[in-house]
Amino acid sequence: MRNVDEDTITRIALAYHEGANNPRLKRIMTSVIQHLHAFARDVELTEDELYQGIQFLTDVGHITDDKRQEFVLLSDTLGLSMLVTALNNHKPAGCTEATVFGPFFVANSPEYENGDDVANGAKGEPCFVTGRVTGLAGEPVPHARIEVWQADSDGFYDVQYAGAPASQGRGTLRSLEDGSFHFRSITAESYPIPYDGPVGRMLTALGRHPWRPAHLHFMIEAPGYERLITHVFRAGDEYLDSDAVFGVRSSLITDWKRHEPGKAPDGTSIGTPFSTLDFTFVLNRAKTGVARRGAPGRSSERRSIAGNWRID
Amino acid sequence: MRNVDEDTITRIALAYHEGANNPRLKRIMTSVIQHLHAFARDVELTEDELYQGIQFLTDVGHITDDKRQEFVLLSDTLGLSMLVTALNNHKPAGCTEATVFGPFFVANSPEYENGDDVANGAKGEPCFVTGRVTGLAGEPVPHARIEVWQADSDGFYDVQYAGAPASQGRGTLRSLEDGSFHFRSITAESYPIPYDGPVGRMLTALGRHPWRPAHLHFMIEAPGYERLITHVFRAGDEYLDSDAVFGVRSSLITDWKRHEPGKAPDGTSIGTPFSTLDFTFVLNRAKTGVARRGAPGRSSERRSIAGNWRID
Repeated sequence: MRNVDEDTITRIALAYHEGANNPRLKRIMTSVIQHLHAFARDVELTEDELYQGIQFLTDVGHITDDKRQEFVLLSDTLGLSMLVTALNNHKPAGCTEATVFGPFFVANSPEYENGDDVANGAKGEPCFVTGRVTGLAGEPVPHARIEVWQADSDGFYDVQYAGAPASQGRGTLRSLEDGSFHFRSITAESYPIPYDGPVGRMLTALGRHPWRPAHLHFMIEAPGYERLITHVFRAGDEYLDSDAVFGVRSSLITDWKRHEPGKAPDGTSIGTPFSTLDFTFVLNRAKTGVARRGAPGRSSERRSIAGNWRID
Repeated sequence: MRNVDEDTITRIALAYHEGANNPRLKRIMTSVIQHLHAFARDVELTEDELYQGIQFLTDVGHITDDKRQEFVLLSDTLGLSMLVTALNNHKPAGCTEATVFGPFFVANSPEYENGDDVANGAKGEPCFVTGRVTGLAGEPVPHARIEVWQADSDGFYDVQYAGAPASQGRGTLRSLEDGSFHFRSITAESYPIPYDGPVGRMLTALGRHPWRPAHLHFMIEAPGYERLITHVFRAGDEYLDSDAVFGVRSSLITDWKRHEPGKAPDGTSIGTPFSTLDFTFVLNRAKTGVARRGAPGRSSERRSIAGNWRID
């Protein structure tokens, strides 16, 4: 088509992919084009502003590498990640709620036994974590794969340190026969998401702060159950009501008890203050016959679009 | 706020930037969040799909450098660039229409005199271009700054060649006292936009071709007139009705006459076939007292958002 104008361009752009043979991709790109065009009309976007937006996305792309994912930060801070989490995690009452995945997960973290110290040298006061994995009826879920990751007391994940040689504050363990698990780590603190890049500039320009309340990340998987991606938050944290990425659920907040130096839950003697926390994770039954809508990087469903979208 | 859900998250995300002190940025980001969230709800975006989209944008960012702007290609191929051009270039009848800027403009191209060969060694049959710059009443516009850029006969701009040492097929000249100008170049051909990257994969997945009809780019500026960014297209090109970036206007199509070897318009003898084309560019009067909504990279209006948005 020639002579497209502001009234006809959306229809014509959609007609261009009329013949796409992946119906899901076609549906998604139809919506992308409709909303992108509606946005430009809505705000009467100027040519300068379009190029500023393009420069912003370019900056986001250029700061992103295998250790820093600024597009995830952007999605998180615009509320898109939590919205998608909410849309895809309708669970029966009583199940542990899901929350955002975040940009700091690393696959294949070190395997630990119950009782081990997953801090592996990360900075912070000791924290002793106990928990249970159960089903909705209270049945224990043994041998569940539990991945935990967290920031240190300075608010940094291991991957944020230049040349970080080892996994610190992250690990993989298994629930015991009774569904319980326990490990030692360090006490997480509230921290700002990385704000020395374009997303930080955006937050500043919008009058927003970059802080997240203290939390531990968990991803829990067991056969017959839906994978759960969630956090455990610390009661009393000053950012619980203004989390920069909208991830706080009341049901995920628990007391992190602080203890004076002395005997720890694992029987050792600790010379500094330490904390303890306990949380029960209730998994939803896996839907049978329905493709799992899971977390990034694992699901075989990924290929439904990726086969066309990416050429790996 | 805690416990945001799919119904409340948009309102809460907007409340987070309630205090932004740049009203234009606030309006734009409000619309960005509204449309981004509406898109996710509309297609019931899965978590996998969100991360595939993030990976796609990451790939777009990583292939983008100072010579290749894949985000501009993305904006162009989704029709966003042409829409924004249309929204910002309402001109009186009789004015030359604007079209997309594209990703291949380079500032500070070499200065040429009328009659010079701007090809500067670029590959292709010679092409002799004549034209005039006038106002709406037909008045000549002398000393207009005319920037021209184009692909060679293989469909590549100079900046697409690895280590391209010199500007080829681009230059800046001035209209003469009578508003006329003339230069020699090479005959542009239809070409595919760069499709060896993520945007090319997207077009393939959508069943779209990457071709643009043959064209010359022009950017023309003169005091008292609106800057004009446009193309001149070649009549008869097979892609005039399916331009990958939606840029064709009937009023911008002209005959590119092909000639057998012989005497060229500049009096020289040419041993190969060559072409000639002629086009009159009619500029709109500058609006007085209204901030210019101009092209990327130049307008001082840019700072209205950039001051907050970017920290240069």
